[in-house]
Amino acid sequence: MKANTFVIAAAVSLVWLSLWSTLPLSAQSQSEKVVRLAELEIDPAQLNAYKAALREEIETSIRVEPGVLTLYAVTVKGETNQIRLFETYASPAAYQAHLQSAHFKKYKSVTATMVKSLRLIETEPLMLGTK
Amino acid sequence: MKANTFVIAAAVSLVWLSLWSTLPLSAQSQSEKVVRLAELEIDPAQLNAYKAALREEIETSIRVEPGVLTLYAVTVKGETNQIRLFETYASPAAYQAHLQSAHFKKYKSVTATMVKSLRLIETEPLMLGTK
Repeated sequence: MKANTFVIAAAVSLVWLSLWSTLPLSAQSQSEKVVRLAELEIDPAQLNAYKAALREEIETSIRVEPGVLTLYAVTVKGETNQIRLFETYASPAAYQAHLQSAHFKKYKSVTATMVKSLRLIETEPLMLGTK
Repeated sequence: MKANTFVIAAAVSLVWLSLWSTLPLSAQSQSEKVVRLAELEIDPAQLNAYKAALREEIETSIRVEPGVLTLYAVTVKGETNQIRLFETYASPAAYQAHLQSAHFKKYKSVTATMVKSLRLIETEPLMLGTK
């Protein structure tokens, strides 16, 4: 490779890298992300205790796990013991690490008798549009 | 009010405002947010055209509408014509503005014959954990 060609190739690489770093994360690595939906029905008598345990689990996961990108929890209007989760992980490895974390295991143990049904839905991200 | 009291009140207000501005948006105004889930079944013969129209609608909404915070679209694994959306708007007014936008109306019109079924689920945010 001639010196000139090398300089041009290096310049092109630098421009490409700088453009890449300005992309939002969702565009950089969308294909590797893991997105999971969960539909839960909670024992109405234990709903407040369940919500407290879920809030603690979400707060801890977002704070201490770099690969946990979103843990959105909502209740269905008019059916307050129906919970829906929208979970985004940076990669399959980040998702596996989350499952092995002490705070997730604690949440699963504490809520075992509170969750009447749980449906997990594996997905393929199509477009994760966010600000 | 004495001058000293006024100065102290002003200082406390400034500290409060500066702390408030460091909070993530999700903590600032979570209670006013509108979160909607949608479950769609798409005509398999028109799936690619539907995905293109949806991607355009999401990209435009996130880019031009300040009150559209997330429009996440995923397909259910193994059922690629089943689409799930997780939509977050800053407020009820932002949601109404989105429904009236030209790009949303275009999307609804273009995809009218592609969508075999649509289920909208109104929700109450419980905890929107995000980085």
